[in-house]
Amino acid sequence: MLIEDRLKELRDKINERVPSGIRVTEVEFEGPELVIYTDDPKRFADEADLIRVLARDLRKRIVVRPTILEDPEKAANEIRAVVPDSSGITDIFFDADTGEVLIEAEKPGVVIGKNGITLREITKHIGWTPKVVRTPPIESSTVKQVRQYLRSVNEERKTFLRTIGRRIHRDIPGRDETNKDAPRKDQWVRVTTLGCCREVGRAAFLLTTPDSRVLIDCGEKPDNAGGTPYLYVPEIHPLAQLDAVVLTHAHLDHCALIPLLYKYGYEGPVYSTPPTRDLSAMLQLDYLDVINKEDRKIPYSSNEVKTYIRHSITLNYGSVTDIAPDIKLTFHNAGHILGSAIAHFHIGDGLYNIAFTGDFNYSKSRLFNPAINQFPRLEALFMESTYGGSNDFQPARSDAELKLYETINKVLSRGGKVIIPAFAVGRSQEVMLALEEGMRLGKIPHVKIYLDGMIREATAIHTTYPEYLNNDLRNLIFREGMNPFLAECFQQVDSSELREKVINGDPCVIISTSGMLNGGPVMEYLLNLAEDEKNALVFVGYQADGTQGRRIQKGWREVPLGRKGTITINLEIDTIDGFSGHSDRRQLMNYIGQIQPRPEKIFCIHGDENNTIDLASSIYKRYHIQTHSPMNLETYRMV
Amino acid sequence: MLIEDRLKELRDKINERVPSGIRVTEVEFEGPELVIYTDDPKRFADEADLIRVLARDLRKRIVVRPTILEDPEKAANEIRAVVPDSSGITDIFFDADTGEVLIEAEKPGVVIGKNGITLREITKHIGWTPKVVRTPPIESSTVKQVRQYLRSVNEERKTFLRTIGRRIHRDIPGRDETNKDAPRKDQWVRVTTLGCCREVGRAAFLLTTPDSRVLIDCGEKPDNAGGTPYLYVPEIHPLAQLDAVVLTHAHLDHCALIPLLYKYGYEGPVYSTPPTRDLSAMLQLDYLDVINKEDRKIPYSSNEVKTYIRHSITLNYGSVTDIAPDIKLTFHNAGHILGSAIAHFHIGDGLYNIAFTGDFNYSKSRLFNPAINQFPRLEALFMESTYGGSNDFQPARSDAELKLYETINKVLSRGGKVIIPAFAVGRSQEVMLALEEGMRLGKIPHVKIYLDGMIREATAIHTTYPEYLNNDLRNLIFREGMNPFLAECFQQVDSSELREKVINGDPCVIISTSGMLNGGPVMEYLLNLAEDEKNALVFVGYQADGTQGRRIQKGWREVPLGRKGTITINLEIDTIDGFSGHSDRRQLMNYIGQIQPRPEKIFCIHGDENNTIDLASSIYKRYHIQTHSPMNLETYRMV
Repeated sequence: MLIEDRLKELRDKINERVPSGIRVTEVEFEGPELVIYTDDPKRFADEADLIRVLARDLRKRIVVRPTILEDPEKAANEIRAVVPDSSGITDIFFDADTGEVLIEAEKPGVVIGKNGITLREITKHIGWTPKVVRTPPIESSTVKQVRQYLRSVNEERKTFLRTIGRRIHRDIPGRDETNKDAPRKDQWVRVTTLGCCREVGRAAFLLTTPDSRVLIDCGEKPDNAGGTPYLYVPEIHPLAQLDAVVLTHAHLDHCALIPLLYKYGYEGPVYSTPPTRDLSAMLQLDYLDVINKEDRKIPYSSNEVKTYIRHSITLNYGSVTDIAPDIKLTFHNAGHILGSAIAHFHIGDGLYNIAFTGDFNYSKSRLFNPAINQFPRLEALFMESTYGGSNDFQPARSDAELKLYETINKVLSRGGKVIIPAFAVGRSQEVMLALEEGMRLGKIPHVKIYLDGMIREATAIHTTYPEYLNNDLRNLIFREGMNPFLAECFQQVDSSELREKVINGDPCVIISTSGMLNGGPVMEYLLNLAEDEKNALVFVGYQADGTQGRRIQKGWREVPLGRKGTITINLEIDTIDGFSGHSDRRQLMNYIGQIQPRPEKIFCIHGDENNTIDLASSIYKRYHIQTHSPMNLETYRMV
Repeated sequence: MLIEDRLKELRDKINERVPSGIRVTEVEFEGPELVIYTDDPKRFADEADLIRVLARDLRKRIVVRPTILEDPEKAANEIRAVVPDSSGITDIFFDADTGEVLIEAEKPGVVIGKNGITLREITKHIGWTPKVVRTPPIESSTVKQVRQYLRSVNEERKTFLRTIGRRIHRDIPGRDETNKDAPRKDQWVRVTTLGCCREVGRAAFLLTTPDSRVLIDCGEKPDNAGGTPYLYVPEIHPLAQLDAVVLTHAHLDHCALIPLLYKYGYEGPVYSTPPTRDLSAMLQLDYLDVINKEDRKIPYSSNEVKTYIRHSITLNYGSVTDIAPDIKLTFHNAGHILGSAIAHFHIGDGLYNIAFTGDFNYSKSRLFNPAINQFPRLEALFMESTYGGSNDFQPARSDAELKLYETINKVLSRGGKVIIPAFAVGRSQEVMLALEEGMRLGKIPHVKIYLDGMIREATAIHTTYPEYLNNDLRNLIFREGMNPFLAECFQQVDSSELREKVINGDPCVIISTSGMLNGGPVMEYLLNLAEDEKNALVFVGYQADGTQGRRIQKGWREVPLGRKGTITINLEIDTIDGFSGHSDRRQLMNYIGQIQPRPEKIFCIHGDENNTIDLASSIYKRYHIQTHSPMNLETYRMV
């Protein structure tokens, strides 16, 4: 069926269900949503159940937009009249192309009202579709820039969303177009491993059916060698024919090379949660900056990061979304970092279900709830195996925090400084929360905790998306008004002068990127502080093979830094396990033990060779599930 | 290094080794060969060891051609003067583009002379490079047409060979061209299964390295549904970037769709043995004819068969040949049908060795020697599993022949006719030889044996390439002058009148194609003879799932034939095992037991699902070799 005919059919069905008098002027696919344009959004909004019923019957995500929009200034006044002052509205933006008004408020719940009543009231009065976002307690320049940029490319984005919408809802031909005599094409589901197998880094998996092609993640290998996924193999080309890129979370080993896809000809959407979009843009720009400073050749420019943002489509946890004619995507909390998701794909009409965990944590952390392991259906699971080895047990977080306090007390008391390399996103915030509490409860002395790199900005993004934090932390911040990230012990280092001061100053704690010592400001601290044995370098995160972090952890005492010379390591080296955002061996095994439903096949990826093989074989032995430890560049047939 | 520089380097090396006075005018890659043009081919030919030494030192296949060629008429006279009359020269063709003269003789050995002395003598006298081929005892119109066609496109073919030659000898970049900062590209070897896994038919395997891509076979599925390999998946595209297609043997389930590749944009060579080239062209044209007669849509036209022939490059068993910058191909006897080969690939500089058996027979047959299973090196083997099931034991050939004689005696004595459906190539000739001997030795009565379909033509091709038959048969034909294929009991059916006569005539034996009753003249016989229970249908070959042959074998008594109506089966149905060109279960297991060296990995393909799984698991249990029974559309990493 032609897409126009399909839209006509949908419009007819909608008109059947819409009470007489409400005129539907246009029906259009925009991205994964079906947008209904009407002269009468007020009455549409009045029919509380109408949109829900349409969504259920048409099996589409429905958005209603007014055909004619009210004057923005007048509309803004009406919004302020309807919404209680207690909402703390900080800004109102009108987006003429989507007919949306973005209301930024300190208390979005008040703008929305109970069961959305205030929001519907707004819609009734102004025509514009209100979207409510929280005013970040710490202003994030990234979030601000992303939102401003998206507004500035409104026109282009609308065209893009319509193109994608029509592509998602295209007809699947019932037969092989290359051979019209052939019977209906075989159905199949395949996964091609383009990276991240028997290694940590350069995550990239290609999920294909006869009709669709989806890339999951596109990261770099954190070994300073510029290792990229196997993007040159024909399986993934032409990139313009990919239906979707799905990003599980914002760490660089999963997201760094997504902008490169646009340089190589990709034109489609990148699906992620909203925090993942913002965090990944921030980290990609920082990544370019780090590479540039090291005189390495940058793989793409900030223009491609913009292109990525322009093509991003965000989905919240639990929202079942068509991303290709035969594939529905749902994100579930992965507990690893802010916005991290397990990507669940429902393929065909009940044909197959496959999930990619991305990185996940199956225990509750200071920031997040444990990863989800209940799915409506699941036949195959690609799971990370970072700590999949039979001895990879991590201590409890409380023990880890105790050990961190002890180490800090010891180093500070001898007049030393503590350097904690950490990913800007995830580990840094966990350690900040532990240190803030330790200081508040008197377990460690009151010293400055310097944050260098993107840590503060990352923290700002965390407070922009409180719904992605766990209940305890959310309550602490928003109910009890106690935001530990704003504690005065923290100080951002944002100039080389201040960095020099810190280096030459009093005993302190320095949390700095990169987390595996492959570049970033932490190298500056190391260069200046490593020779003094009073100081300490404390690893709180996983150090991948090939990184300087792993080398120092293994005992190297001379670390070559290229033209910057060589660092002589005299300072104390500590590794404090237990802060990881990854599940340890026990949790990985428990995750599978408790997963519902139990999949038929499990692929252990994202781990050193020994760990993936060990985990695969242990799961098979314990649970009698077919397991694999794939190599890169293989293709597995699921069905 | 640029190809011009490489050729210059080779020319310098050649000049160093060539005695002073011999002038080398040009050095050029033509297909897999390095061609040395010289003013003085006579002196080159005098230096008996020179070409051998050059080939060894340069690790290239060397051909020497004269820069200036003698007048063809004069040269022909000189050839006749040098070659003894006993050679029985039947024709001499001059090919100005390659500088070759094709001498067709009844006794090619006499033209060549002991250790090639006569041939060198010819070269000395005429400049032209002599190539000697045997005058077929039965003239094959296919062979004649192929040779004439190739001569007619000389010019184009020379350009093609030079293009391919330069492509084969191109530089392998030491790094990923998409990322010049990256370290030397990983080395890997992969195989993608595009068909023929857990099924019989549509053989197609893609062998890839970072630098090269080779397709092995491209056949149809013999189930009348037009099943093709998965040629639409991106792995194989663009087809123009394939380095080579390698054809193991001429059966349609391996070769039928090779011409289609040219329709889809392939421009490279197809490597096969010389008989495989001729047999496959014959069978492809017949295939188009059969499809056309059945009013099905033909997938390509005879033009594409010509294109295939124009792009074919033939190699004899044992000839180690560069087919890509990092891949050398060697064909070895597979014992299955005329020219059938096991394709052995040596990849990289000792990196990996992998062989594809194609179809093979590990016992000596009336026609062929047993398949080779000794290789210089071998890490992985893709082996056929047609009779791989644990109960797939075939009787000895002598028992099978005895049973065939019994059946024929029984049917003839009750006044019936015996229909033997058989592949034109392979089974037909085996059965012909058995029947001729049976008749000669008085084991069956002297009746006519009618050959319908391409059988006689296929037989003619067999006698064109006696070096591909086993010693016994070759001696019988060429030393003892007794050609059983010429026995007077055989009569070709070449008109519908004669076919009608046969149907209405005396008791007889009819050998006719197709071998699995999926079309061809055998259907005409069945349509007219199936209702009479005096007659018999005798299966001597494998019947694949989905074919009419398999249905009748399983006991169907009503066979729908589309618009031709329905055949009611009353005639006797017999299956005589033991004529198969395939190894049975015992031979498959023995093949692996005796293979040298023992591979690390074995992939069981080309068999029903149960058979491939059973064989894979049995080989693993018996020999502790890692085995797989792949599915279609998977990619396995070898290294």
